[in-house]
Amino acid sequence: MVYELHYWPGIQGRGEFVRLALEEAGAEYVDVARGPVSEGGGARNLAQLMDELAPAPFAPPILVVETLVIAQTANILLFLGHRHKLAPDEETGRLWVNQLQLTIADLVDETHDTHHPLSSGLYYADQKEAAKQRSEHFRRERMPKYLGYFERILKGGGESGAGLAGEALTYADLSLFQVVRGLEYAFPQAMASLAPKLEATLALAERVEQRPNIGAYLKSKRRIPFNEEGIFRHYPELDGKA
Amino acid sequence: MVYELHYWPGIQGRGEFVRLALEEAGAEYVDVARGPVSEGGGARNLAQLMDELAPAPFAPPILVVETLVIAQTANILLFLGHRHKLAPDEETGRLWVNQLQLTIADLVDETHDTHHPLSSGLYYADQKEAAKQRSEHFRRERMPKYLGYFERILKGGGESGAGLAGEALTYADLSLFQVVRGLEYAFPQAMASLAPKLEATLALAERVEQRPNIGAYLKSKRRIPFNEEGIFRHYPELDGKA
Repeated sequence: MVYELHYWPGIQGRGEFVRLALEEAGAEYVDVARGPVSEGGGARNLAQLMDELAPAPFAPPILVVETLVIAQTANILLFLGHRHKLAPDEETGRLWVNQLQLTIADLVDETHDTHHPLSSGLYYADQKEAAKQRSEHFRRERMPKYLGYFERILKGGGESGAGLAGEALTYADLSLFQVVRGLEYAFPQAMASLAPKLEATLALAERVEQRPNIGAYLKSKRRIPFNEEGIFRHYPELDGKA
Repeated sequence: MVYELHYWPGIQGRGEFVRLALEEAGAEYVDVARGPVSEGGGARNLAQLMDELAPAPFAPPILVVETLVIAQTANILLFLGHRHKLAPDEETGRLWVNQLQLTIADLVDETHDTHHPLSSGLYYADQKEAAKQRSEHFRRERMPKYLGYFERILKGGGESGAGLAGEALTYADLSLFQVVRGLEYAFPQAMASLAPKLEATLALAERVEQRPNIGAYLKSKRRIPFNEEGIFRHYPELDGKA
């Protein structure tokens, strides 16, 4: 059983949350759009595939396995979490991890809109002034609110070494790691000013990074570096204190 | 077993997607924040409750039942869909309905940002020019893309009378109804210009409206009217052709 992951090549984007889960699980997968065009790679093939898949996805990432075609990041992770024990099996725990992932997804959406507040169809340069305003609000209000929330959960967990849903690592922990590293890349000043209040969160991110499979993945060529085409973009003029 | 729904009083907001599922299911629930302050009603009580609940929700809506505390709209609906047969039982169908709901949630987020593109902490009047730009992009690009997507799914279903996941009604159908009515309220001109291409979607919305439980709900005082405090706001200066 080999998973096919379909996501825009060249960026981590929302596909990265799926990659991290697949890598942690040690699952075999093909990152199709990053392969050669002759094997279905490239953005054009991906766009065409989207017209052909059933049931039709609205947007990548898309996971294809056996007869299943699954889209929406949190939905893919709900599926993978169950299959690869990256979430509790019982209902309460499963819903809690899904809830955390959806909250992380909201933070990711808001991060995207810091550089594209007016239109995803306009260049950043054409909405820079609006981006500055949105980013300031994001740094001062939203980042502290979201990250403070996850910090409280991690601290409330008690025993050190635990994640967002207790002792066992879940896909929500992997996703929080990704968001922390992304925000550090995009808003280094804001993250530096918040760091003293994010002890448990930053410690979790380090623990995730040191897991054997994740560590190997991060050092590999499979990990695309952060860049200014993705969700987490470093535009110095948008950064500043939180 | 009585559900407690906790959501900001005075607006439909994201709580409405939960209300529609509870109403369709004929479930007994208390819309706590809309009740008297002495019984936990009002925004202040809700804010305090959020500090006390475990596991901690990031934001309303929150559903409390038995020992469960569930937040995030799509997560609550995943739970209710399973309990009240508002989604298929088997994995493929369940994931498909969750995927649809998450796509609807993205559309709802984008709708909200048409009137608050810069900051949820600023008044609309203080971001009106940015709102005009974002709304134009939303009307011309995003509304046709999202609504066209759902229309294609409904048409692909074949037999008339079917919803987004086949013959049986699901919570995603209820949510699509809510979004259609909301967009008609907020952007009447844009929806009028799209209507000829949304035959199946508009027919679905009517079928939902005519279901006995939903019909009774919509005529009751439990249904809060659309207004300019919610997600779907009618600001004529933001409307225009799609």
